[in-house]
Amino acid sequence: MIIVMASRKPEDVAYVVTRVEELGLKPHVLEGVEKTVIAVIGDERILQGVLALEALPHVEKVMPVLKPYKLASREVKKEDTVIQAGKVRIGPKSFCVMAGPCAVESREQILQTAEFVKKCGAHILRGGAYKPRTSPYSFQGMELEGLRLLKEASEKYDLPIVTEAMTVEQVPVVADYADIIQIGARNMQNYGLLRAVGKLNKPILLKRGMMSTINEWLMSAEYIIAEGNPNVIMCERGIRTFETETRNTLDIQAVPVVKKHSHLPVVVDPSHASGRWDLVIPMSKAAIAAGADGIIVEVHPNPAEALSDGAQSLKLETFEQLMNEIKPLVGIMNRTL
Amino acid sequence: MIIVMASRKPEDVAYVVTRVEELGLKPHVLEGVEKTVIAVIGDERILQGVLALEALPHVEKVMPVLKPYKLASREVKKEDTVIQAGKVRIGPKSFCVMAGPCAVESREQILQTAEFVKKCGAHILRGGAYKPRTSPYSFQGMELEGLRLLKEASEKYDLPIVTEAMTVEQVPVVADYADIIQIGARNMQNYGLLRAVGKLNKPILLKRGMMSTINEWLMSAEYIIAEGNPNVIMCERGIRTFETETRNTLDIQAVPVVKKHSHLPVVVDPSHASGRWDLVIPMSKAAIAAGADGIIVEVHPNPAEALSDGAQSLKLETFEQLMNEIKPLVGIMNRTL
Amino acid sequence: MIIVMASRKPEDVAYVVTRVEELGLKPHVLEGVEKTVIAVIGDERILQGVLALEALPHVEKVMPVLKPYKLASREVKKEDTVIQAGKVRIGPKSFCVMAGPCAVESREQILQTAEFVKKCGAHILRGGAYKPRTSPYSFQGMELEGLRLLKEASEKYDLPIVTEAMTVEQVPVVADYADIIQIGARNMQNYGLLRAVGKLNKPILLKRGMMSTINEWLMSAEYIIAEGNPNVIMCERGIRTFETETRNTLDIQAVPVVKKHSHLPVVVDPSHASGRWDLVIPMSKAAIAAGADGIIVEVHPNPAEALSDGAQSLKLETFEQLMNEIKPLVGIMNRTL
Amino acid sequence: MIIVMASRKPEDVAYVVTRVEELGLKPHVLEGVEKTVIAVIGDERILQGVLALEALPHVEKVMPVLKPYKLASREVKKEDTVIQAGKVRIGPKSFCVMAGPCAVESREQILQTAEFVKKCGAHILRGGAYKPRTSPYSFQGMELEGLRLLKEASEKYDLPIVTEAMTVEQVPVVADYADIIQIGARNMQNYGLLRAVGKLNKPILLKRGMMSTINEWLMSAEYIIAEGNPNVIMCERGIRTFETETRNTLDIQAVPVVKKHSHLPVVVDPSHASGRWDLVIPMSKAAIAAGADGIIVEVHPNPAEALSDGAQSLKLETFEQLMNEIKPLVGIMNRTL
Repeated sequence: MIIVMASRKPEDVAYVVTRVEELGLKPHVLEGVEKTVIAVIGDERILQGVLALEALPHVEKVMPVLKPYKLASREVKKEDTVIQAGKVRIGPKSFCVMAGPCAVESREQILQTAEFVKKCGAHILRGGAYKPRTSPYSFQGMELEGLRLLKEASEKYDLPIVTEAMTVEQVPVVADYADIIQIGARNMQNYGLLRAVGKLNKPILLKRGMMSTINEWLMSAEYIIAEGNPNVIMCERGIRTFETETRNTLDIQAVPVVKKHSHLPVVVDPSHASGRWDLVIPMSKAAIAAGADGIIVEVHPNPAEALSDGAQSLKLETFEQLMNEIKPLVGIMNRTL
Repeated sequence: MIIVMASRKPEDVAYVVTRVEELGLKPHVLEGVEKTVIAVIGDERILQGVLALEALPHVEKVMPVLKPYKLASREVKKEDTVIQAGKVRIGPKSFCVMAGPCAVESREQILQTAEFVKKCGAHILRGGAYKPRTSPYSFQGMELEGLRLLKEASEKYDLPIVTEAMTVEQVPVVADYADIIQIGARNMQNYGLLRAVGKLNKPILLKRGMMSTINEWLMSAEYIIAEGNPNVIMCERGIRTFETETRNTLDIQAVPVVKKHSHLPVVVDPSHASGRWDLVIPMSKAAIAAGADGIIVEVHPNPAEALSDGAQSLKLETFEQLMNEIKPLVGIMNRTL
Repeated sequence: MIIVMASRKPEDVAYVVTRVEELGLKPHVLEGVEKTVIAVIGDERILQGVLALEALPHVEKVMPVLKPYKLASREVKKEDTVIQAGKVRIGPKSFCVMAGPCAVESREQILQTAEFVKKCGAHILRGGAYKPRTSPYSFQGMELEGLRLLKEASEKYDLPIVTEAMTVEQVPVVADYADIIQIGARNMQNYGLLRAVGKLNKPILLKRGMMSTINEWLMSAEYIIAEGNPNVIMCERGIRTFETETRNTLDIQAVPVVKKHSHLPVVVDPSHASGRWDLVIPMSKAAIAAGADGIIVEVHPNPAEALSDGAQSLKLETFEQLMNEIKPLVGIMNRTL
Repeated sequence: MIIVMASRKPEDVAYVVTRVEELGLKPHVLEGVEKTVIAVIGDERILQGVLALEALPHVEKVMPVLKPYKLASREVKKEDTVIQAGKVRIGPKSFCVMAGPCAVESREQILQTAEFVKKCGAHILRGGAYKPRTSPYSFQGMELEGLRLLKEASEKYDLPIVTEAMTVEQVPVVADYADIIQIGARNMQNYGLLRAVGKLNKPILLKRGMMSTINEWLMSAEYIIAEGNPNVIMCERGIRTFETETRNTLDIQAVPVVKKHSHLPVVVDPSHASGRWDLVIPMSKAAIAAGADGIIVEVHPNPAEALSDGAQSLKLETFEQLMNEIKPLVGIMNRTL
């Protein structure tokens, strides 16, 4: 930690030095040409009150040196984490495709989609039973019945399931049915929920909040791992910016950045990033080329009748085209589909 | 709703027209010089699937005409809503000051703060018992014990309490102690939580998410009101932008914009907007001048020892200065402090 | 400057130490618990290549300690700068109102507006002769003829003029007519233009770029001052964010932040910040309360016929209302109108 | 154009109808359930004052239907534009690599870099002679001498040159030396400069402003084409967002979006997008996979001694690795390197 002093008076510097020592850290005073700086040695991460020193009179700013996450970092674990969902492996060497409708809407819809995506080579079936919706007047999901239909499709077509839990109360029932539990973008900093899924021994797909920095996203992974569940899959799904042509801006740089800082696998959700089905194929290819471990895409037998997210869902035949077009790319990146 | 067609072929237009009619809405085809447009008449708000028409072949885009919220809108209720918390009134004519520490840390801290802010003229005591923290290694609040201490201070100094509920499970216990329940910025789209507080008959302080549009924020208010609780106080607390001098960018324009669209009262949180105590006084003044119904500020007897948010907390004497400086301004805005 | 090392090997640290010494700076190595840090002493501002050390192998990041501007900073000049434009004074104690149409459109329009705003108490006449427009098909301004009409209005109603120069070639002619030269938001980093107006001895109104940090904005002021012209007025006019209810987000916090870092006066442009005439009065009030030294607002005798920016222009009677409503506020802030 | 009325009174609607007719456009009134809407038929693009109708009393908002650019649009020209710079072709089927240092610093530096990048297969030599720098204290480029050195390297190694013109005055001299003239991100809306290069018959590399929407970027291309120069290459170089891990956020979705709306070629600048050399290879791959027509990357024989942008420049051997790694990817995308 580096403390930049606003004042250079010996008594002001001495006061800050004392406060640093009281926190159990070692201060080191450096007199620059224009500023005095106090370098602080010790584990700033686990000590309360370190950043609060910015409130001290005569302190201009406090700049942390260490990253605030530990268990999620490459410094603690060098090799890539591989996550197992049923027989499917998410991590280096393979490339995982998760596909299915935004929401489960009927038995026919989910079975038809599952059969088709399996045939095309998808590995995991996605589908929402509990749906977070901006409007209270929108379709909110089939709930338990949705989970049962997902399970039926999963067993019939041998596809593990990823589906979202929105509240702490939903966690046990979702955990009963799902192979991977999704934490949605709006819940990325719902700490009660992070703790609840941290107590499970199941893979968690942690979507990045649309307003969250990579640092905060890794801190949310840290919450889950700190509770005992190391099986976190990071999912980049676009961030909010000033651009309005697309629903969100896909932060494709996040893929190599997370992989540099962390050992966790990273998948990309091109459907939510763009909000437009016509960008899903090029963005899936970009994700592969950037080094992602997988994609999660929305597929619907009839997007224009979808009860949610129709505009960003692929038709069945477009999903087939996607699978055909990405195959050679996945190979070049030394992965198998 | 306006549908801009990508194609002008009669059969493509006819297909979209049919789909609109199936949704129970009335289409109206307009042939422009370069584009064909279909104006749709009916209540687009309550019909599922309207926006999904964007997934149709040959549709370029769909532009909604109506605002998506109803109960929160001025169109449904013209006069300003006044909210009562104990003897305190939040709405036009008065100006409400909510003050207290970020987190309850000890009996002495909360009692000392409550006594002081009451003496200076504050109306409501704020203080966190359950704290959402970015890092799992940070202080997470005193929980139930914190609520008890808040209650003691509230009764001793006759100050209603505002405090946060982070999860659905916390709602009943927080409701037992608090006069106003706060929904934090990170939970603004935690729909389970919104529904839970929507079932109460207590004022709700709804903080704006740091990356939420005004439209989404009003939709979250709509969730609460739609469950039966009309007592929603909107709280602007800064949005996330590229600027790094301040923790967030205070969207001061949001005050008159929300008041134009909605009948709900609006308060401003200058402490979280800036993350810097030295901006709290000028930003409190700006909030008053912009037409806000109140402010919520962090005050701590010793900010440099605060377990959270020290850098943005006012010392007691600075809070006193704030109260003195805002008095004439509140008067000019035709409000009483 | 603080260099955080990625490697702790003695030879890697020694290499960086050597490179720092070659730059004429003094390195100071600190061994932390997990990281090695090199604090660098010297004037990092004027030495080339300091930040380039981030390209060195084994360097994780470089964090500057000093602000990159000098002449614009409070550290170099403690007291507030007062700028004189004709008989008008811009700085502490007074409050300056600049008003007029977005663009000069006709002799009648500018004379009528000038007469009216003068009568209401405005101090400076604004009006564009050269207009930066997003579309090549939009009205581009009356150019030289516009300058002449501005001058006529200025002399007739005793109002100094502020108007924009868009290119280096326009600088001499604009300087002939204008009392204050405006640098528009899109040109905030047009360095040739900054240098050109830096060679004049006239006040410069420097608009903040809509995606520029406060730091970059002050760096642009530094460009002008470094050429010899210290008469820079900073103008906050809203930044670009994800919010779409308003054209830009008025960064009201920028007012006290710039005043803390710099001695230069700050004015606010509520017309461009919101893009909506109905927010101009509340935002002008917020600007005064936040400590601004003035405002610049668009006024047009007939906004719905304006050739540019009609939606954000005040009608004459609304401008009169603005002047009446801000008077008591200006007084409370210890300024005179 | 769609006008949403705030009022439904017949006289208010009639007034707006009259105003629309005065503009030479045809209004069409539609009575919805809650709102009255006026659809306007005609070429809204070339008529002044259309958007100004938003200033009318009783108008809630005006929503344009047509895109504001014409010559740059696919609607006007279906087939992809191919741009020729010397013997190099930029457009579909080929993939163009532009490489070189941020700034020309010395004869040796530019010759060594040119020789190396040519050997590795680069097509165009980049290098700045005039440099836009945030700080007036930073190296500002070798200017004319830099152009001469670029030319020498260009002729010796048979590499066309791309280099930036920052002001209108620099355009003729830069045009004398360069094969492609770059308009930098900070000048994307410097309309005088756009007009000046629009009068040339040379390819223009138009960088996206870091605060510019795709729509505004295409409008800037429209400025150039409207002056008579159709040879515009669009260059995505990252936009400014809240994320701080990377210098900018590469908007990879912009590649297919621009290609959908426009016939112009699109290249990607991964060096400026990230500001970090270690992201250049994965982001170059992502650009190829997303459908870009080329990349422009910074290469320096000794990045840690670079006078600008050292942290984002590739060492020579890393550039060689880049060229080797992208080769198979370019092939799969049906392009030749």
